[in-house]
Amino acid sequence: MSVFWTERIKNTEPYTPGEQPANKKLIKLNTNENPYPPSPLVIEAIKNAANEKLRLYPDPDSIQLRDIIAGHYGLNREEVFPGNGSDEVLAFAFGAFFGREEKCVLFPDISYGFYPVYCGLWNIPFTQIPLDEDFSINANSYVNEISAGNCGGIIFPNPNAPTGILLSLDNVKIIAEAALKKNIVLIVDEAYIAFAAPESTVPDSSTLESSALSLIKSFPNLLIVRTFSKEASLAGLRAGYAMGNRELIQGLFRMKDSFNSYPMDALSQAGASAAIKDASYYREINKRIINTRTRISSALEKMGFKVLPSSANFIFASPQKGNLKAADYFTALRERGILLRYFNKPRINNYLRISIGNDDDMDKFLEACREIGAGGN
Amino acid sequence: MSVFWTERIKNTEPYTPGEQPANKKLIKLNTNENPYPPSPLVIEAIKNAANEKLRLYPDPDSIQLRDIIAGHYGLNREEVFPGNGSDEVLAFAFGAFFGREEKCVLFPDISYGFYPVYCGLWNIPFTQIPLDEDFSINANSYVNEISAGNCGGIIFPNPNAPTGILLSLDNVKIIAEAALKKNIVLIVDEAYIAFAAPESTVPDSSTLESSALSLIKSFPNLLIVRTFSKEASLAGLRAGYAMGNRELIQGLFRMKDSFNSYPMDALSQAGASAAIKDASYYREINKRIINTRTRISSALEKMGFKVLPSSANFIFASPQKGNLKAADYFTALRERGILLRYFNKPRINNYLRISIGNDDDMDKFLEACREIGAGGN
Repeated sequence: MSVFWTERIKNTEPYTPGEQPANKKLIKLNTNENPYPPSPLVIEAIKNAANEKLRLYPDPDSIQLRDIIAGHYGLNREEVFPGNGSDEVLAFAFGAFFGREEKCVLFPDISYGFYPVYCGLWNIPFTQIPLDEDFSINANSYVNEISAGNCGGIIFPNPNAPTGILLSLDNVKIIAEAALKKNIVLIVDEAYIAFAAPESTVPDSSTLESSALSLIKSFPNLLIVRTFSKEASLAGLRAGYAMGNRELIQGLFRMKDSFNSYPMDALSQAGASAAIKDASYYREINKRIINTRTRISSALEKMGFKVLPSSANFIFASPQKGNLKAADYFTALRERGILLRYFNKPRINNYLRISIGNDDDMDKFLEACREIGAGGN
Repeated sequence: MSVFWTERIKNTEPYTPGEQPANKKLIKLNTNENPYPPSPLVIEAIKNAANEKLRLYPDPDSIQLRDIIAGHYGLNREEVFPGNGSDEVLAFAFGAFFGREEKCVLFPDISYGFYPVYCGLWNIPFTQIPLDEDFSINANSYVNEISAGNCGGIIFPNPNAPTGILLSLDNVKIIAEAALKKNIVLIVDEAYIAFAAPESTVPDSSTLESSALSLIKSFPNLLIVRTFSKEASLAGLRAGYAMGNRELIQGLFRMKDSFNSYPMDALSQAGASAAIKDASYYREINKRIINTRTRISSALEKMGFKVLPSSANFIFASPQKGNLKAADYFTALRERGILLRYFNKPRINNYLRISIGNDDDMDKFLEACREIGAGGN
């Protein structure tokens, strides 16, 4: 604490991201990074943009990138807002749309840990809606809260994190409809949607049946947020975007222009544009991730883990056999140089979140789990 | 307006940045970009960082960059906070330190147009303190406001923008002292400080006598904000930083971690680090800018313009001869493909802000002014 701090930062508990260790020998299965490299065309586009034009400000409106995203998804430029990672887009969206009339934002009790932090940042009250016993989102719980009249916004990741469980489009629609009746904004955070396809059949993310993208023409209150970090293997580039009705997009631009006129640098605009254009490359690597996910889920189940059905590039698993708890595995794996994410929170304190790495790393992970399990019995 | 917007964005008037025209044939003297290219070592560092490691999140704490900045200025890592351009650093700083107990932030009536926008974003009241008749900052006016007890923060650019006028370090100290007595944070926005040296003698910006850097060890309430956009010719990269007491820096990290864990991408961290290391290159190009500034100021004065004494990479000039007003010059120059910045605001609506370009472009600018002046008389 400091005498110089405002109440805003005194009272907020900042988000803690997964560790980025300097020791590169570690196997990083802790931050849901893509194990495969970005498209070579992306690297080339960035190198080409690394020239003397960097002396000039980048396009504050990211016209080229927005046109490419819009073209990919069959939208208009005015329906797309790009930002410095989807975290920035989310931070703007909370400030622009949530907490009107001091009403509570709704999100799942088990979900992305940054949502309550954004509420702290903008001083927005919130209510956490419990997931069902099986960790799925219960659409009716949201409809009931909305009908009760104390809802000032709704957000959830789909697939949810850290559970990896997908909510069906029908259920998303039920929530969107209830929200629209009260002029309430629903944000569907589709950071992991590209991994929501069945094994071996990853379609282009523009045509993913699980995405709420098809709803935005009918629901002016629906904002979809995506990121290049996971599906485009570009966590280091910081690029994300929102898609929705132009009034929502205008609202995000008002936030941006009240915060930082140029949040996306020239290099990330160039790299993100190239990524959208090389969808076939990403379809291929993400298909591999989905296949690995299936294989590892089965192997863990055989070892006595409970594994939630994942539609993401990570799995959420809980040891059920022997004396060892998730926290024990987390520590023992860390000692072996394998990083996972463990949340010491109610309902999930016996679960591990395991990012899907490449097959070699996942084999090492499985082998280490076997050793730990054997030693611990 | 939209039914989906919060009061925050309904009521805020966003900042309007200078135009970034798609037509590259224009002579851009409107956004204070550096006319010379970034250091070749910066370009090389960015190209080297454009590799498959972009799949990983960047270092959220920017340790390497902070160590390089700290080493350059004789500080500790804990006294440095880097961000996605100085605009983001400023946005965080307003949220972290300003408006405690609903008291007013003070800044000059003629200054950077983003300050009142940040106040709108965070719902902070503000008071604009008039510059003196000669457009200089009057330190006593600030001391009086602080003593009166209704001050919740102070910020000004030094040199000020768009006037270009430098406040002496003695005067900065007078304000810092009064603020410290009341535990009030003073931010000195040194975006243009590298250009504050006399003609032909640009020192390394780490040793600039005009900078308030030497005061931060004595004033725990003093935060200095810098940018790579102007002096390092990297507006397109988006990198800025703050230097100050570690409590202030911690406060900025709390803001960042409540907004976006990774605001600086891997490429901008690499590029900014390389820029600090190649100070000699930048000393050379910025010396050229200062020499051009002297030459153009004299030429404009000979043409009947009043030119404020600039310590920045732009000049603020007002036509005093003939019937043509600043707005007329602005329009006529634009028709000739030369972009300046014109602010239609009280006290400065007969002034033009002219970024210092390279000598060729500035000669074209002077020639165009002569033609316009001749035709308009």
